[in-house]
Amino acid sequence: MSEESRKERRVLVAVDESDESMYALSWSLKNIIFQNSSDTLILLYVKPHHHDAYATFDSTGIMDDPQTPGHVLSPEASAAIKKYSQDVVDCVLQKSKRMCKDLENVKVETQIESGNPKDVICEMSRKLNADLLVMGSHDYAAMKRAFFDSVSEYCSQNVKCPVLIVRKRKPYAGSGN
Amino acid sequence: MSEESRKERRVLVAVDESDESMYALSWSLKNIIFQNSSDTLILLYVKPHHHDAYATFDSTGIMDDPQTPGHVLSPEASAAIKKYSQDVVDCVLQKSKRMCKDLENVKVETQIESGNPKDVICEMSRKLNADLLVMGSHDYAAMKRAFFDSVSEYCSQNVKCPVLIVRKRKPYAGSGN
Repeated sequence: MSEESRKERRVLVAVDESDESMYALSWSLKNIIFQNSSDTLILLYVKPHHHDAYATFDSTGIMDDPQTPGHVLSPEASAAIKKYSQDVVDCVLQKSKRMCKDLENVKVETQIESGNPKDVICEMSRKLNADLLVMGSHDYAAMKRAFFDSVSEYCSQNVKCPVLIVRKRKPYAGSGN
Repeated sequence: MSEESRKERRVLVAVDESDESMYALSWSLKNIIFQNSSDTLILLYVKPHHHDAYATFDSTGIMDDPQTPGHVLSPEASAAIKKYSQDVVDCVLQKSKRMCKDLENVKVETQIESGNPKDVICEMSRKLNADLLVMGSHDYAAMKRAFFDSVSEYCSQNVKCPVLIVRKRKPYAGSGN
């Protein structure tokens, strides 16, 4: 299809602090998004639950009142952890936006959400009306299946739009055989 | 990235007789492959085992000798089934190539293999040095997980290059909520 006849697309890229996610964004910029298209690129960062793990120290669930019985972390420690969590988000999104700086005409938007990444990514694909979801993938499939939920697997089964899973390519052993 | 600076890519599209696979090819032609690129588009058809199901009627495994004891199908029936199987392949590849007829400069190649589709698709991605594998996906995930191996799930976990899974998009229920 010619460049001119392409419709405006909304490409959602799930980014996080992993190399795999940055590689997926980089690959998309080279292969999916083009400088002079009218695409919208949406960088989605989902703060996973472990970013809020300190909340488990607070048996009351009331984080803003250090006087509440059961509050274990000092206000300073809570604030420091919150700041670190926000710094990670800012750092990832700044890095992602720098990678997109050469795009002309393409609109680049950022979106920060909290929750279980696999659920939030699926939900945001729907809410943001994405035409394509791009995700990185770690290359430790066996370990991942044994110990973790696979976010990319879950999303590829549950998101309704096309899903591009970008795995960092390694040289094939025995290539050419 | 600008159109000029893109490197030649080898895009492997797994095609079969399903609407989902034709939709995946169509989506790729609109979104991944561009007319004046130097991409190579490889249309891969994998004859699944059930195409050769008639072989199970032959307890000897010697299909070419109708005199061999245990041969149940007549030579005519075997030939008819073989011809039907080949007709399906030809029909899918002809339809796929017609869909690509407007591509200029893009090289379109076809490849026919036999075996278990998920294994063959992974193997051919490696052998053909694909930069991207595109697959369709049926939208009956729950049933598929219960009764069938999912080819697209398996490949997305085992192929080393980026994998694009194209699901036929349906209007979202409750969109905009």
